Amino acid sequence: MVRKVRVRAPATVSNLNCGFDVLGMAINEPFDTVELELTDTGRIEIADIRGCDTLSRDPEENVVGPVLHAMATAMDFTAGFRVIIEKGIHPGSGIGSSAASSAAAAFAANLLFDNAFSLSELVGFAMEGERLASGSPHADNVAPSLFGGITLVRNYEPLDIVQLHLPPELSVVVIHPDTEVKTSVARGLLDRHLPLETAVRQWGNVGGLVAGLYSEDYELISRSLEDFVAEPRRAGLIHGFSGMKKSALASGALGAGISGSGPSVFALCRGESSARAVLESMSRVMHSERIGFKAYLSPVSSRGAGIC
Amino acid sequence: MVRKVRVRAPATVSNLNCGFDVLGMAINEPFDTVELELTDTGRIEIADIRGCDTLSRDPEENVVGPVLHAMATAMDFTAGFRVIIEKGIHPGSGIGSSAASSAAAAFAANLLFDNAFSLSELVGFAMEGERLASGSPHADNVAPSLFGGITLVRNYEPLDIVQLHLPPELSVVVIHPDTEVKTSVARGLLDRHLPLETAVRQWGNVGGLVAGLYSEDYELISRSLEDFVAEPRRAGLIHGFSGMKKSALASGALGAGISGSGPSVFALCRGESSARAVLESMSRVMHSERIGFKAYLSPVSSRGAGIC
Repeated sequence: MVRKVRVRAPATVSNLNCGFDVLGMAINEPFDTVELELTDTGRIEIADIRGCDTLSRDPEENVVGPVLHAMATAMDFTAGFRVIIEKGIHPGSGIGSSAASSAAAAFAANLLFDNAFSLSELVGFAMEGERLASGSPHADNVAPSLFGGITLVRNYEPLDIVQLHLPPELSVVVIHPDTEVKTSVARGLLDRHLPLETAVRQWGNVGGLVAGLYSEDYELISRSLEDFVAEPRRAGLIHGFSGMKKSALASGALGAGISGSGPSVFALCRGESSARAVLESMSRVMHSERIGFKAYLSPVSSRGAGIC
Repeated sequence: MVRKVRVRAPATVSNLNCGFDVLGMAINEPFDTVELELTDTGRIEIADIRGCDTLSRDPEENVVGPVLHAMATAMDFTAGFRVIIEKGIHPGSGIGSSAASSAAAAFAANLLFDNAFSLSELVGFAMEGERLASGSPHADNVAPSLFGGITLVRNYEPLDIVQLHLPPELSVVVIHPDTEVKTSVARGLLDRHLPLETAVRQWGNVGGLVAGLYSEDYELISRSLEDFVAEPRRAGLIHGFSGMKKSALASGALGAGISGSGPSVFALCRGESSARAVLESMSRVMHSERIGFKAYLSPVSSRGAGIC
């Protein structure tokens, strides 16, 4: 039996404009790493968290705690875990920081449990980390972090994750401004009810985006990347958003929007050289508005959580 | 220049459970036929309507009138049309009766105009018939009647029609009860606002259904055929609905629901022999409830409007 593993799980962009709460995609970088070792202590011990000073090492307050606890319970496992977390993804960035740690922990524990669980079942466990992080157990980040590529959370009860076809040329730019947007604040801005016409336009775009991915029709993908639900409410939280979005589209991005509940902003592009031009134009906006930021450029990765 | 054509356009099932106002599919039978002849009268003359006594021959009151008028205007065409309509589809049945006549008229006129317009443009013209029939210019029946197969109305302004991949084994059963449901009454029952959670579940299913069609994953198609928006409000309008739906699913249908705004009920099946069993079980329900009906069984047709 393997007693120690080290797993990485990627950052993710959820929503993808039209797919509020259901779509998400994995990017190559940044990523979190979780090293997990079996112990005989009977408890979960977070020995170290590298790359971040603000997260708690108390397993009841760190997302890996409830994930490992749920999996141990399901396996009637009574020994213990020693955990070392390496945060590559800044907490609160809106690119699935808590989800990546949760996904990496779930994937790592499953390796120690001889792959007792399917990837879809791991999504269910990793959602326990999301429950701790945001109060509600969402899957739109943990699913792509585990599966890789672009995933659809078709349904929650029962959980039904669909890994969508991934066209070969998608690259993504992520700009992470040096500001924080609390998920709870971002969710509080949303209307609890939508006009039926707005909902119809939104699901027309979900259908169009999924069709565009399968048929590798980049124009259709581009036309479908609209959000009538979250972006109109949340854009004002993110300094520089509208300028970045405009410049991304003007520079050839297929679409651009808020990553998850922000503050990160993403732009989806066809091909890496297009993405590089888009990254430059978005960066220029941030420089001119004197807002600090980090920038990432990555192909949309088919690689989900895995051993490293 | 061709001076006379005869075109058929198929009945259609719109909504497909989750895709309210955006999805629709063409079936082989029944269908409407429109014969169109160029004249020098400078006006639209409906010479005959066969197979139906209740429709007006006044071109301002029959759906073909505004369709032909709009196309003639776009072409600066000042001659006239002589029209003979053969109704294979019962008006008010909920399987796109007005849409099929509108689609056939648009397709026929386009042939006389040397195919001046694309299929998508014809959808725009055929919507003028829908505007007359129901007060609002919907495309979810005219699009599949023109294109064939399963179509998505991604957007209205500008109009963006996507023909989705059609898995080979889909068959559909349609039961048309001997009752009428006015589209305006059915629309009036709908909530004008949806809880965000409900909308999210609905667009999760739209994504799942489109993914299931492209990946030919019949189980995913089946799981996605749920409607949280229209069916809960409209099912009560249709005598026998819940019994038919239950029996269809128990007999192996992938899904079942209201066709458009009803009263027709459809069941989507994998393969013709499955569809035959489903048709029998739905028919038994109607017999036992002593409700008269017509039944149709057809593969989902990739054939849209065409010369006959």
